[in-house]
Amino acid sequence: MCCLYHLALSPFCRKVRLILAEKKLEVNLIEEPILEKRFEFFTHSPSSKVPVLQINGLVISESNAIFEYLEEIYPDPPLLPEIMADKVEARRLSCWFDDTFHREVTAKLLYQRIYKNLSGTDHVDSGIMKSGMTALKLHFQSIGEILEKRRWLAGDKMTIADFAGAAHISSLDYIGDIDWEKFDSIKNWYVKIKSRPAFRSLLKDYLPAFVPPEHYEDLDF
Amino acid sequence: MCCLYHLALSPFCRKVRLILAEKKLEVNLIEEPILEKRFEFFTHSPSSKVPVLQINGLVISESNAIFEYLEEIYPDPPLLPEIMADKVEARRLSCWFDDTFHREVTAKLLYQRIYKNLSGTDHVDSGIMKSGMTALKLHFQSIGEILEKRRWLAGDKMTIADFAGAAHISSLDYIGDIDWEKFDSIKNWYVKIKSRPAFRSLLKDYLPAFVPPEHYEDLDF
Repeated sequence: MCCLYHLALSPFCRKVRLILAEKKLEVNLIEEPILEKRFEFFTHSPSSKVPVLQINGLVISESNAIFEYLEEIYPDPPLLPEIMADKVEARRLSCWFDDTFHREVTAKLLYQRIYKNLSGTDHVDSGIMKSGMTALKLHFQSIGEILEKRRWLAGDKMTIADFAGAAHISSLDYIGDIDWEKFDSIKNWYVKIKSRPAFRSLLKDYLPAFVPPEHYEDLDF
Repeated sequence: MCCLYHLALSPFCRKVRLILAEKKLEVNLIEEPILEKRFEFFTHSPSSKVPVLQINGLVISESNAIFEYLEEIYPDPPLLPEIMADKVEARRLSCWFDDTFHREVTAKLLYQRIYKNLSGTDHVDSGIMKSGMTALKLHFQSIGEILEKRRWLAGDKMTIADFAGAAHISSLDYIGDIDWEKFDSIKNWYVKIKSRPAFRSLLKDYLPAFVPPEHYEDLDF
């Protein structure tokens, strides 16, 4: 069995958990308190980042390196399309969520609310939160336009782009930052992906200090 | 011929230029003033990011999506090793440069000096600069330790990890932020990669508002 060092609400860890579950790989999840800089973990990941996956004698960090490894070694089911234009689009959108969307939205809203507490301060910067909410609305408009034309984010089939997007969006949904009524096409897509068996473990996440809204676990919200 | 919308000192654009040159693909470079949000460019890249590569009827953004496409379609010479553990290491380090090193070093030092001017302000935040310099020293120690044990960053062969690293480090070298005398093993590696034909175009970059130090172009500095 492989072993994943992770944090429950980290979108990069959630993406890897979705990939592992979709490919039916059993995993031992170890919640890693990264701010404590544990020696055992530090030897695996000198940059003290999660996710870190131990698998087949390898120790892999960086969620994109983990994905490309899993896709090559466990190609069934594939998370990259065979058609080159669709494959490019799947990787492009996956990178976009992990870079632009993360920097402008997830890092601002999620880390303000959650990790400020972990680092021992209660201060939430209202300017950063406001900028995150503005970017969320702007980016949701673009994602919504894509999903009005396509069944899944990169085309007809579910790909790594959908898992990257769902990883970020599910973290934001946990902290109650998404107003679903305003984004029908994204809501319909999220209902579909949320109902996949691979999503079950994410919906069971529960941090006592941050109780999710009632609809978080609800498949038909 | 393919066409690359880029900015001369962007590490992500430099990485793509190195990949294209190493694979001997001729490219038409178009310097894109991204802050002007030109309509022609915006239709290619709704997120207004560079690099954007037009090639074989595709328009690809996100440097990692561009790399994986080029590596698959133009495998000669390969920039990913065949041995799986080395391949994982090459992708891990490439992602690490583009995420951690970029956020903690390049974004702080380079963007403070260059892009503050582009956006019409001369203000340089000394706290951000100091934090970037501290992180640079810390990360150079880790990179130096790797290069004392390995010929190239991910092992015996030059890979995408070396191009990602050299892209960031060459941008920082252009603005004169690297004290080479303190890091022998990194300097030896950089001399090797700088002398490759693929590097020539980067060494010819010249921005009149930001004159590089004399050693920037020098292959035996």
